[in-house]
Amino acid sequence: MVADVVTEFIEGLVETYPGLQFLDGFPQVKVVLRADVSSATYNKVAVISGGGSGHEPAHAGFVGEGMLTAAICGDVFASPPVDSILAGIRAVTGPMGCLLIVTNYTGDRLNFGLAAEQAKSEGYKVEIVIVGDDCALPPPRGIAGRRGLAGTILVNKIAGAAAAAGLSLADVAAEAKRASEMVGTMGVALSVCTLPGQVTSDRLGPGKMELGLGIHGEPGAAVADLQPVDVVVSHVLKQILSTETNYVPITRGNRVVLMINGIDRKVPIYVQEAYAYSVMELNFLFFMMRLLGATPVMELMIAAGKAVPNLQLEHGLAVERVYTGSFMTSLDMAGFSISIMKADEVILKHLDATTKAPHWPVGVDGNRPPAKIPVPMPPSHSMKSDESLGRPLQLSQQGHVLEVTIEAAAEAVVNLRDRLNEWDSKVGDGDCGSTMYRGATAILEDKKKYYPLNDAAETVNEIGASIRRVMGGTSGILYHIFCKAAYAKLKASSKSGITSKQWAEALEASIAAVSKYGGATAGYRTMLDALIPAAAVLQERLSAGIDPSTAFILSSEAAIAGAESTKHMQAQAGRSTYISPEILASVPDPGAMAAAAWYRAAALAVKDMYQAS
Amino acid sequence: MVADVVTEFIEGLVETYPGLQFLDGFPQVKVVLRADVSSATYNKVAVISGGGSGHEPAHAGFVGEGMLTAAICGDVFASPPVDSILAGIRAVTGPMGCLLIVTNYTGDRLNFGLAAEQAKSEGYKVEIVIVGDDCALPPPRGIAGRRGLAGTILVNKIAGAAAAAGLSLADVAAEAKRASEMVGTMGVALSVCTLPGQVTSDRLGPGKMELGLGIHGEPGAAVADLQPVDVVVSHVLKQILSTETNYVPITRGNRVVLMINGIDRKVPIYVQEAYAYSVMELNFLFFMMRLLGATPVMELMIAAGKAVPNLQLEHGLAVERVYTGSFMTSLDMAGFSISIMKADEVILKHLDATTKAPHWPVGVDGNRPPAKIPVPMPPSHSMKSDESLGRPLQLSQQGHVLEVTIEAAAEAVVNLRDRLNEWDSKVGDGDCGSTMYRGATAILEDKKKYYPLNDAAETVNEIGASIRRVMGGTSGILYHIFCKAAYAKLKASSKSGITSKQWAEALEASIAAVSKYGGATAGYRTMLDALIPAAAVLQERLSAGIDPSTAFILSSEAAIAGAESTKHMQAQAGRSTYISPEILASVPDPGAMAAAAWYRAAALAVKDMYQAS
Repeated sequence: MVADVVTEFIEGLVETYPGLQFLDGFPQVKVVLRADVSSATYNKVAVISGGGSGHEPAHAGFVGEGMLTAAICGDVFASPPVDSILAGIRAVTGPMGCLLIVTNYTGDRLNFGLAAEQAKSEGYKVEIVIVGDDCALPPPRGIAGRRGLAGTILVNKIAGAAAAAGLSLADVAAEAKRASEMVGTMGVALSVCTLPGQVTSDRLGPGKMELGLGIHGEPGAAVADLQPVDVVVSHVLKQILSTETNYVPITRGNRVVLMINGIDRKVPIYVQEAYAYSVMELNFLFFMMRLLGATPVMELMIAAGKAVPNLQLEHGLAVERVYTGSFMTSLDMAGFSISIMKADEVILKHLDATTKAPHWPVGVDGNRPPAKIPVPMPPSHSMKSDESLGRPLQLSQQGHVLEVTIEAAAEAVVNLRDRLNEWDSKVGDGDCGSTMYRGATAILEDKKKYYPLNDAAETVNEIGASIRRVMGGTSGILYHIFCKAAYAKLKASSKSGITSKQWAEALEASIAAVSKYGGATAGYRTMLDALIPAAAVLQERLSAGIDPSTAFILSSEAAIAGAESTKHMQAQAGRSTYISPEILASVPDPGAMAAAAWYRAAALAVKDMYQAS
Repeated sequence: MVADVVTEFIEGLVETYPGLQFLDGFPQVKVVLRADVSSATYNKVAVISGGGSGHEPAHAGFVGEGMLTAAICGDVFASPPVDSILAGIRAVTGPMGCLLIVTNYTGDRLNFGLAAEQAKSEGYKVEIVIVGDDCALPPPRGIAGRRGLAGTILVNKIAGAAAAAGLSLADVAAEAKRASEMVGTMGVALSVCTLPGQVTSDRLGPGKMELGLGIHGEPGAAVADLQPVDVVVSHVLKQILSTETNYVPITRGNRVVLMINGIDRKVPIYVQEAYAYSVMELNFLFFMMRLLGATPVMELMIAAGKAVPNLQLEHGLAVERVYTGSFMTSLDMAGFSISIMKADEVILKHLDATTKAPHWPVGVDGNRPPAKIPVPMPPSHSMKSDESLGRPLQLSQQGHVLEVTIEAAAEAVVNLRDRLNEWDSKVGDGDCGSTMYRGATAILEDKKKYYPLNDAAETVNEIGASIRRVMGGTSGILYHIFCKAAYAKLKASSKSGITSKQWAEALEASIAAVSKYGGATAGYRTMLDALIPAAAVLQERLSAGIDPSTAFILSSEAAIAGAESTKHMQAQAGRSTYISPEILASVPDPGAMAAAAWYRAAALAVKDMYQAS
């Protein structure tokens, strides 16, 4: 099964990317190569990388014009066999030769080395560059040397760009070698507790944390510090740039590029213990990080956001490019690594060069501004002028009618509070009356001071603002939308006088907006079941030419009837959907009843005033 | 803390991508927008999406020319506030207007709706398209409707491309709406067992599996089927394409695009239980999948590799594009979703259009070949001709000398087996003698039949092949490299006669290759400590003009001395690095002693023959 995943991965990879292909010997020979390259005609230096699988997207995801010409995939955590490497070399190497870029693991070095010697004896021009960028272990001594980590991806990109530019094998190899000496990497393994049951960040405690996995994969508990991400990042950067170990030739004032590489692994630690121990782990610090509550992409970006100012301020470096993403993962751990490469114009040019490699990040090229300047927030385009705000000293006739109507409508809601709560307690959470009451009393209060009553459009907008201030939940935002849509419609009308027809159109716009954003329509047992029939009758009667205040009254009767009819409707939203039809049939929808009540009260108030005048 | 991660994520995002920027009201206002767009000058339709965070890279990672103009980020799993949405609209909307693309969640619909109405009342042209692509629930009824999942990303791309092409707001909105009606998505949550301790795939059992997390996040165990990935993929595709539910207007013979979206989350389930329950989970099937041993990228590619043939063969659809990656993740689950969109030329053109959005996949555009044709494995370029292989009927004088020398060298190793094992048992794993013995006896055997002894270069190559066949481990591959490097060097010489100088050069090439790929050099307590002084003396004496066989003898004395001197060396590789210096001082390196022995025997054999002749 473990062997199979590599085969199936490559099958999916070439299905996804039409520019990638596998060799005929597949699945024994696991070579991914550019579909457009054939050794017979290829007139550039081929750049080949590879190694054990379990580190995807490395390296197959970086095959493409401008980066790798081929990737040789071993089984999970196993170096690819010499024959596969040879097959890859033969498939893509033309007269310009090929460069093998190999991460510094004994198996890879020997297998790629043997393949290189064999290919040379067959007449191919072959160079090999070994990348060992790890900065976690003490300074190297002995054979093993520093292991190859995510810095290899940067080296691959630089070599690929140099080859694409038409450079000779010697020059491509020289650029790759130089790049490999400029880069240092260190990994951070984020460990999670193996205690069974529920673990919350509160329970982690402020300082220390038991881990279920020892640093070398041995069973038993280790103790790791629980650290905030900026502390971890700072520690890692210090170690990479240490002048004692002198891993990378980077000093204050240098230009650098930064790579934050995600090593996401969704299988938790206790499952990981079932896997063979990977040499890669040896080179990682283990940290418990206070970063619960972030997605993997978030986590990497957060680390990048901490690393850039640290490099600039603490280490005096100019960060020229930031590559954040999952480039070289590891099957059996979760965490990230940080790579820093000393940069100059040549390296930046190669890193910026276009490539079709699917997993090379886009949008990173080009010079960064020295510091990100936030885009200023633009002012509101509101055409509201200041003098139109606030209660006018003198009310117009329309202003007076509007005030009386608003009062009547709001008071109707105030008076209905307990009945609304009673109905809602049977079909909802019992607070419909209280919520509406809050809105209505806020309207009554704000009206005295803030409503520009002579301007109906702005007054409707202010009613929305009052509601927004005090009414939470879905009903609050829906009434706010209701007012906002009416406002947008009424604003187009003359300020001095709004006709009945315009009011009717505003009502229809409000209903349309509530339906659109709220998702309900007629028959859903909501306030729309009062308002939709009301609007229909209003339009119809006005079109028929009858007296507007009578039309309003007739319309409000339709609202009441519509609200009462909700008793016979199935609930389609909210908690009511969980209530049995028998109970629902005994109770009207409180939202619809509230809407009918204020609408009816408004209509009666208007009728009274026009009869009185 | 949970609110903070969004702020820090955005900081890292704009550090990584110079083309992205945040608004000045940040961090209260969490809007990511194109750094090159200002509402004052922008002459295209702005395309804005957004929603609660915790789904990265959605949506901020898709901001860029050709896709989103701005993304509005809420807190984790919380819809962004109306003021943030408004700020985003005002920041990027020019006279062409803006399209809001909203995933179908009540909070998002209401907040984006209110912001849209407000913006309209301020004079902006605003359209809104709501995407509900979920196919996991029974056919929708009521307000909620189908939820918005990863299909939204495809809609965003299509709208972004339409806007970049200069279309009017009405046309961009129409294209987005049409696309939203063409796409269906279903998620698969991959759950892991919460049993403490070590869990291997063997222990999971063949059929059922206890889960620690109920489907709705409630505590207590649920039982899920343990399924291979192709079964899961097939089930999901059937449900999306079901003619009963008729979620998507896709029938046999149609062209489609496929999106495999990763929902990786590295925090294991039992930590997830600490998070608020996300509405997204409701719409996902829960599966235990037999896919342990794959990285997240692998897993997605594997699913893609299963989905494409299934769509083609089972459903009769032409798969035109495959998008595989992490596009819209979820904080509190791990798994993937599959989206299928009906495609036509317009949709494909918009999907293929170039974009600078960092997380839109590259290398997917352009028509796919109907089936992937594997690249034929090229033949070996070996210049070895058939007649040169096999033992010649008649040995030349050089051929005779070579045979006798090989015999002597191999027999020296055979005779030294027990002593080599004895030394190795003190400083290594005790099998050096046995391993070398296997190689030596294979050489003695193969020589009789296969070695073309009159051709020294090819004979050396065949010795390498004998070693490769029987000698495992590092020493086997190093001796194989040794022979291959010598072979490449000797092949350049005349076939009939190889001079002493050429042999010496071949020895140096072999040493260089072993050192390069093996990583050791003089003083590392390896076979090189015998061979390096031997090669030096050989070169020196030959240059001084003395008799070649005498030079060979003197050189072999240096080999013996060098091998003996390893007693005083610290180990730098292999198991010997763990042995105390006292023990090491009593034992020479067995690999060095073996090399000295065969080299010494070869020298004596050559000397004997030339003295005899």
